[in-house]
Amino acid sequence: MEKKQKRYLLQEDEIPRYWYNIQADMVNKPLPPLNPSTREPLKAEDLYPIFAEELSRQELNQTDAWIEIPEPVREMYKFYRSTPLVRAYGLEQALGTPAHIYFKNESVSPVGSHKLNSAIAQAYYCKQEGVTNVTTETGAGQWGTALSYAARVFGLEAAVYQVKVSYEQKPYRRSMMQVFGAQVTPSPSMSTSAGKDILTAMPHHQGSLGTAISEAVELARETPNCKYTLGSVLSHVTLHQTVIGLEAEKQMEMAGEYPDIVIGCFGGGSNFGGISFPFMRHNILEGKQTRFIAAEPASCPKLTRGKFRYDFGDTAGYTPLLPMFTLGHDFMPSNIHAGGLRYHGAGVIVSQLLKDGLMEAVDIDQLESFEAGCLFAKSEGIIPAPESCHAIAATMREALKCKESGEEKVILFNLSGHGLIDMASYDKYLSGDIQNFTISDKDIDDNLSKLD
Amino acid sequence: MEKKQKRYLLQEDEIPRYWYNIQADMVNKPLPPLNPSTREPLKAEDLYPIFAEELSRQELNQTDAWIEIPEPVREMYKFYRSTPLVRAYGLEQALGTPAHIYFKNESVSPVGSHKLNSAIAQAYYCKQEGVTNVTTETGAGQWGTALSYAARVFGLEAAVYQVKVSYEQKPYRRSMMQVFGAQVTPSPSMSTSAGKDILTAMPHHQGSLGTAISEAVELARETPNCKYTLGSVLSHVTLHQTVIGLEAEKQMEMAGEYPDIVIGCFGGGSNFGGISFPFMRHNILEGKQTRFIAAEPASCPKLTRGKFRYDFGDTAGYTPLLPMFTLGHDFMPSNIHAGGLRYHGAGVIVSQLLKDGLMEAVDIDQLESFEAGCLFAKSEGIIPAPESCHAIAATMREALKCKESGEEKVILFNLSGHGLIDMASYDKYLSGDIQNFTISDKDIDDNLSKLD
Repeated sequence: MEKKQKRYLLQEDEIPRYWYNIQADMVNKPLPPLNPSTREPLKAEDLYPIFAEELSRQELNQTDAWIEIPEPVREMYKFYRSTPLVRAYGLEQALGTPAHIYFKNESVSPVGSHKLNSAIAQAYYCKQEGVTNVTTETGAGQWGTALSYAARVFGLEAAVYQVKVSYEQKPYRRSMMQVFGAQVTPSPSMSTSAGKDILTAMPHHQGSLGTAISEAVELARETPNCKYTLGSVLSHVTLHQTVIGLEAEKQMEMAGEYPDIVIGCFGGGSNFGGISFPFMRHNILEGKQTRFIAAEPASCPKLTRGKFRYDFGDTAGYTPLLPMFTLGHDFMPSNIHAGGLRYHGAGVIVSQLLKDGLMEAVDIDQLESFEAGCLFAKSEGIIPAPESCHAIAATMREALKCKESGEEKVILFNLSGHGLIDMASYDKYLSGDIQNFTISDKDIDDNLSKLD
Repeated sequence: MEKKQKRYLLQEDEIPRYWYNIQADMVNKPLPPLNPSTREPLKAEDLYPIFAEELSRQELNQTDAWIEIPEPVREMYKFYRSTPLVRAYGLEQALGTPAHIYFKNESVSPVGSHKLNSAIAQAYYCKQEGVTNVTTETGAGQWGTALSYAARVFGLEAAVYQVKVSYEQKPYRRSMMQVFGAQVTPSPSMSTSAGKDILTAMPHHQGSLGTAISEAVELARETPNCKYTLGSVLSHVTLHQTVIGLEAEKQMEMAGEYPDIVIGCFGGGSNFGGISFPFMRHNILEGKQTRFIAAEPASCPKLTRGKFRYDFGDTAGYTPLLPMFTLGHDFMPSNIHAGGLRYHGAGVIVSQLLKDGLMEAVDIDQLESFEAGCLFAKSEGIIPAPESCHAIAATMREALKCKESGEEKVILFNLSGHGLIDMASYDKYLSGDIQNFTISDKDIDDNLSKLD
């Protein structure tokens, strides 16, 4: 039999005790978030009305490279961590590439994606600070599911705004959240001012992460003892996700290799940063030359075609102004099946790193992503989330370049989640009912010009 | 924080090297399968036209207690094994029981259930013997998905007959099989004589495992170089599943406990036998007093209300006659969501063990099963397959008895699979759209009287 897979797992006591805060090691730190009215840089205290205090401090921490993982969070990590690092011999053989392909399998978490890594941390800090209710938005439903479960574990009530198009395309994630006891509302909804404004202006608005964030933030602001939580974009979320890359670092060592290329799909940046930053640390501090590639959907190309600007994180303009690569906060992404990547902007850390040339970005069409996902499923047995398919497609591009050049590069990508709740999307792909979406430069320019 | 979970995992070199064949240790061996025309006991050779030869020999092996797991099969087991043994503190606290509840989490396999344990072995032996094509039936789709993936790994073509009601209720398992490259046909179909006979007699027949087996067996018989594979009921399938219980035995030792009660849901018996037989061995050989409970659906009660008789394994009467607890081979189970439990008979080993009082059986209503599944999801974070919900419900009954009596019994159950492809069923349950099905004694008697 041909070699098919090889898994590397850590012992419980090797699970990281600290998250890695790349901000501390960056030469050019991210610019500060600004208060939209005063244009003054925000302090952690300014975020307390919306976020848990410890999370607010983590968000702006540019000095401590290592932040301790609280013991109850680490205990919960042990439910599913370490996640396997897998040598994908099957995919290598299917591609006929000399490259060594590894993936970090975050799909083994009980909710099926990496999102739980931050949900647990956020729910924990909220509980510690006496919060009783949490709100959030969710696109594909991966984050909403994770937060619903984490809230349940720490005895918090969760209210989730799910992007309407995903609510309809993926009703079973709604059911999962409901099984975990959360309240789920499709966004835009008539339950908030932000939602009402959008729906009265555009009654058929299909929602986006931007609209759902506006609604969740509004609910958090107006409800006593209630905090907002976010599943990507923000620096503290990416911080929690570095547990992925920190484990992968030890596991690559077990495999006796070090990655030449690290790849993650890209929505707001947390899974990409999570797998990348611990390796990027060695580029920054020791001059290693690993390449880091963010794989974004061609229909939502903030990294490859957006501009670096101060912009809002949400559609209604409730959040601070963030310095980021953006398509404009009212950019309305196409209804691609990778709902988790339908976001107009990139996190501030990643934006700075891209600006400084420490990482790259590629855009992937929807059809290419599903083709890659199916080949991966056939060769590795795991059906990937439509989001993760973008990372696989980017990996395949690099592996095929190695086939041309004969180079034995080591490629590591993050399998951020499985696609078992997304089989309706695969069904459409298999029946030829999936298309690519294109965006004209003019559309992007028009949208960005509103920021001026 | 309260204690929530504790996982026990084995090292790679602790993964079992042998399957356990309980037939060798049984005092009363199962009666032989009979040729339906001659009523003569079958020999292994008689099964070669349908099954791989090694599987045929395993089926009738009543002498070797330990059968070596071929190295390529063991290599593939390492993709996902050992599966975690989990102490379900969350469920214990939710129930307020002094019982110690453990579950073996087979849902972590890439296809989401224990079925892969036998699919890998069967595909391997077929490949070894020069077979090119495999056929099978599937109910909920768990087995079909497993076989499709295993066939893909060993380079075999797979044709799967899926019970029509499941094909329609669970379209996404069909998509999974198709992503893995299998041909999937709803059964009964017009593609076989057996299917045509059923559909001309009953045009709206919703299918059952019995009809699908008939079709798959017919295809295997009439196609050169093609073998039939079965996902449960047969003794060789249960043999392969003993890897579950053998691992659990070592893991319970790590936890410093030994089960007073072992529970599995029951369709044909392979997951139940898989978790139970390695522990039952100690009852047989050393006089341990562990109880073994098979949890079957109240709407398909072959163990609790069927009779021990020689009967066919399929609807059309293509299989050998098997000595088993049965509701009659043309019993048509209600359309419960636990499609994998909709089978009229029990495997011959389990049937003999039940007859001899070495195990027990309970029947669980559909509503009780979903209620149990939701409580488990909330307390342990994993959404269980509707089939597994039956094992959870039986576990809860025993745990609540411990609450009454104050006994700290150790209960181990097999979480045979996750329910992520079954969210449509949970959705129906949450919206009150799930009912119980009852069967009258008269219906059962009428059906069984046809066997006389």
